[in-house]
Amino acid sequence: MSIALQQIASAVGATVHGQADLRITHVAEPKDASETALALALKPEYATGLADGQAQAAVMWDGADWQSYGLKAAILVPRPRYAMAGLSAMMDPGPGYPAGIHPTAIIEDGAQLGEGASVGAYTIIASGARVGAGSIIGPQCYIGVDAQLGDNAFLREGVRIGARVRIGARVIIQPGAVIGGDGFSFVTPEKSGVEQARQTLGDQGGIAAQAWVRIHSLGSVQVGDDVEIGANTAIDCGTVRDTVIGDGCKLDNLVHIGHNVVVGRNSLICGQVGIAGSSQIGCNVVLGGQVGVNDNITIGDNVIAGGATKILSNVPAGRVLLGYPAMKMDSHIEIYKLLRRLPRLFKDVAALKSQGTGD
Amino acid sequence: MSIALQQIASAVGATVHGQADLRITHVAEPKDASETALALALKPEYATGLADGQAQAAVMWDGADWQSYGLKAAILVPRPRYAMAGLSAMMDPGPGYPAGIHPTAIIEDGAQLGEGASVGAYTIIASGARVGAGSIIGPQCYIGVDAQLGDNAFLREGVRIGARVRIGARVIIQPGAVIGGDGFSFVTPEKSGVEQARQTLGDQGGIAAQAWVRIHSLGSVQVGDDVEIGANTAIDCGTVRDTVIGDGCKLDNLVHIGHNVVVGRNSLICGQVGIAGSSQIGCNVVLGGQVGVNDNITIGDNVIAGGATKILSNVPAGRVLLGYPAMKMDSHIEIYKLLRRLPRLFKDVAALKSQGTGD
Amino acid sequence: MSIALQQIASAVGATVHGQADLRITHVAEPKDASETALALALKPEYATGLADGQAQAAVMWDGADWQSYGLKAAILVPRPRYAMAGLSAMMDPGPGYPAGIHPTAIIEDGAQLGEGASVGAYTIIASGARVGAGSIIGPQCYIGVDAQLGDNAFLREGVRIGARVRIGARVIIQPGAVIGGDGFSFVTPEKSGVEQARQTLGDQGGIAAQAWVRIHSLGSVQVGDDVEIGANTAIDCGTVRDTVIGDGCKLDNLVHIGHNVVVGRNSLICGQVGIAGSSQIGCNVVLGGQVGVNDNITIGDNVIAGGATKILSNVPAGRVLLGYPAMKMDSHIEIYKLLRRLPRLFKDVAALKSQGTGD
Repeated sequence: MSIALQQIASAVGATVHGQADLRITHVAEPKDASETALALALKPEYATGLADGQAQAAVMWDGADWQSYGLKAAILVPRPRYAMAGLSAMMDPGPGYPAGIHPTAIIEDGAQLGEGASVGAYTIIASGARVGAGSIIGPQCYIGVDAQLGDNAFLREGVRIGARVRIGARVIIQPGAVIGGDGFSFVTPEKSGVEQARQTLGDQGGIAAQAWVRIHSLGSVQVGDDVEIGANTAIDCGTVRDTVIGDGCKLDNLVHIGHNVVVGRNSLICGQVGIAGSSQIGCNVVLGGQVGVNDNITIGDNVIAGGATKILSNVPAGRVLLGYPAMKMDSHIEIYKLLRRLPRLFKDVAALKSQGTGD
Repeated sequence: MSIALQQIASAVGATVHGQADLRITHVAEPKDASETALALALKPEYATGLADGQAQAAVMWDGADWQSYGLKAAILVPRPRYAMAGLSAMMDPGPGYPAGIHPTAIIEDGAQLGEGASVGAYTIIASGARVGAGSIIGPQCYIGVDAQLGDNAFLREGVRIGARVRIGARVIIQPGAVIGGDGFSFVTPEKSGVEQARQTLGDQGGIAAQAWVRIHSLGSVQVGDDVEIGANTAIDCGTVRDTVIGDGCKLDNLVHIGHNVVVGRNSLICGQVGIAGSSQIGCNVVLGGQVGVNDNITIGDNVIAGGATKILSNVPAGRVLLGYPAMKMDSHIEIYKLLRRLPRLFKDVAALKSQGTGD
Repeated sequence: MSIALQQIASAVGATVHGQADLRITHVAEPKDASETALALALKPEYATGLADGQAQAAVMWDGADWQSYGLKAAILVPRPRYAMAGLSAMMDPGPGYPAGIHPTAIIEDGAQLGEGASVGAYTIIASGARVGAGSIIGPQCYIGVDAQLGDNAFLREGVRIGARVRIGARVIIQPGAVIGGDGFSFVTPEKSGVEQARQTLGDQGGIAAQAWVRIHSLGSVQVGDDVEIGANTAIDCGTVRDTVIGDGCKLDNLVHIGHNVVVGRNSLICGQVGIAGSSQIGCNVVLGGQVGVNDNITIGDNVIAGGATKILSNVPAGRVLLGYPAMKMDSHIEIYKLLRRLPRLFKDVAALKSQGTGD
């Protein structure tokens, strides 16, 4: 593959400075770049690596003095990270799955495949399932009974979609993700220790041992358009209605979404986040890695929670959080600094007390 | 499907008030309910939704004034959440796997299937494995050499059961769960930095770099009767003896159970909990989402740990915990409130000190 | 299987005391040991169990008074835990996969298998992939286009290796692990709420809603020699260059490694650890279970982080950490103790203030 800089610049809506017909074969970090690479020097601190590599062309920030780096050409972009979106889409070699329906794929009676859909080896499309036009279903996947996938879905290896799950257009799902496991919902015949502890917060003296009885999941999962779901992530079915992931949401690896959860549009859920049953997450929310969300609470729109924040109660829209339990981020940082001065504070108070005694 | 209210009421041990021969086709939340739905108005705050839906019948709490909601009939139950167990079992449409042994299933020589067991497409039952009567093994599963599954097991897609794992009756395992991965156990030829740090708690100055050598897992995993295991959960083999999950335990998604762990009967392990190697968990314990349990510690019976509690040392029976490191829940809440007043406390002490100086 | 003690002792470089030709059939914990078991009484506190079992032979610590336990023979070792490595390797029965290339394995055109490699049922080796000599690829695995695995690799059931991933010799990968999912990298056309919050730490008032645009992963993953990867762990591809896991690293179950992460040699990453994008981890680092590492930070060599430590900023070499946010372990323990005395401190300060007022 070899592409002229002009063609790349057009695709990302930018201008080539210098030799626009220079051709590159791939992109690289500045220090690793060969002569035929397009170096990604998106910030001044990355551009210093250009001296260590052999790049003749680079993508750089608007206003960069590209000639001073010895380049023959540069694509200058006002928001380089955003330019990476278009550029990377153009250069992505993809997984190389064979096209078409693999002879070992099992398409059960009553399953429907849209025009141009491809299905990988050892994948099963169960009865009544519908796969949209242009979709790529990787190898070793399972699409359950009456499940629906919109057009241009892209599923990697070993994705599991449960019965009656409905997924919109252009979804991307990484290997091993499970959409539509049963919800985790159990009940005891009499009031359980957990129910009692939620009321009293106190220890459980003589709580009687009881076995847990299963509440089946009668709902399924609805996933909107343009959603991405990470490797080995698990999204559970709702109890009565469906669990819902809104349009444009992006979920990272190993995320846990409990039954009945509703996530609004365009929310970003980072790696290993867990959202317990029946909680509601707003639109454009960002939950950093390992964030935990309690069950049955509401997180407003535009909330941002830093890594490992544990959210135990409702959060109003627009709040920025950190800590366990979650606090406003600026309060958390103030208190964290004071914690480190706590040994000194204890000494100060002890001194004041002994002064008092000495009076 | 259409069921008379009387039939449902009998199944959950309750009484129909009003028109007992009314037939419903499914259950729904009150606000979403069509005319043929049985609305689940299990609490007064849910019942307000009945006005927005079209339900003619509902399940309600004991003593509810069902007629005031314009219903033709109601099933009144003393513990509505418990009634959901029976009701949902009755209405569950299930995954719709084809019955029987799929022609692509591989049943290796010496594997045994109990009467009426079904095995999904592309599933492998290895040599010496035994699957109990009436079990449903979903598609794309792997049951290892000499593994045993009791009667009426239900495994969803892509479950992996390792060699020599023994599982009781009526187990339910969600997609992608792994029972019987190797334990994570390594040793260095000389004392490692970790061993030293456990003794000194101090920083590691000149610790020598060493490679880790593997300790193989010679044990396997034992899982009791009536256990449920969530999607993409991983339970490791023991080092010498087996890792043990007691009867009636319920494990949610993405749970990690280390080698040699023993979990007592009827414990509830929520999403993303991690239990490190060789720890012992009592009976009727509840670990909230993202709880972490240190290695080689003991958690007593009936302990309840709130979401994201990190348990670093032994816990006596009946304790209710929260926080990192874990504290008694009421202490944690008291201290958390004080933390928020810490900036004020520092100011107060500063003022007291300057008064002292000013004296 | 039956082995003479002399043979075991030779393999682990130790000496038999007593009847060296005694034969054992397996190893067991002292209390569970039958007459033909080799009891593992690696510490004095374990040896007390010998009285409850029937063992005639045991592995014990150097200097143990083995005869006083009524044994016929003992293998005494200076570092018993290290001896377990050799001993367990010798006694491991393994998963019992059938040898050879299973007739249902799909070896695509252009894939290469080294001498003696075996491939399990329903496994796919994609075009251009290379598997080293002596490797055992379990059932239901997927090895992507142009991926490479070194000699003597051992992959359990359902492992997914993405396109262009390169893995060294002697790797061991547990069931369901995913190497080479796409990185989690998104950008908004204009500055996002997250970018703004990172600068201000303050709440997000009127942040405009924007959709996320995908940055494709053009890099892949490189894994060194002698690496182990746990069940359902996920390692993402790099954005431009590869994500890198150094030689000798051991990763436990359900670990999340983000795009562009670099982990140095011989680091130990315990269960459910998450390392966010572009962070650099040194050599011989130990991250306890559920540790979280922020994105774009650097962790020095020999760092040890206790369970659930959340590392939000750079850490110098050799540090021992605990807590959220991470502190030096000894500081954390001191401050944690003071926290428990915080209610008393508030009372003391209140008393001092009222004394002041009373003056």
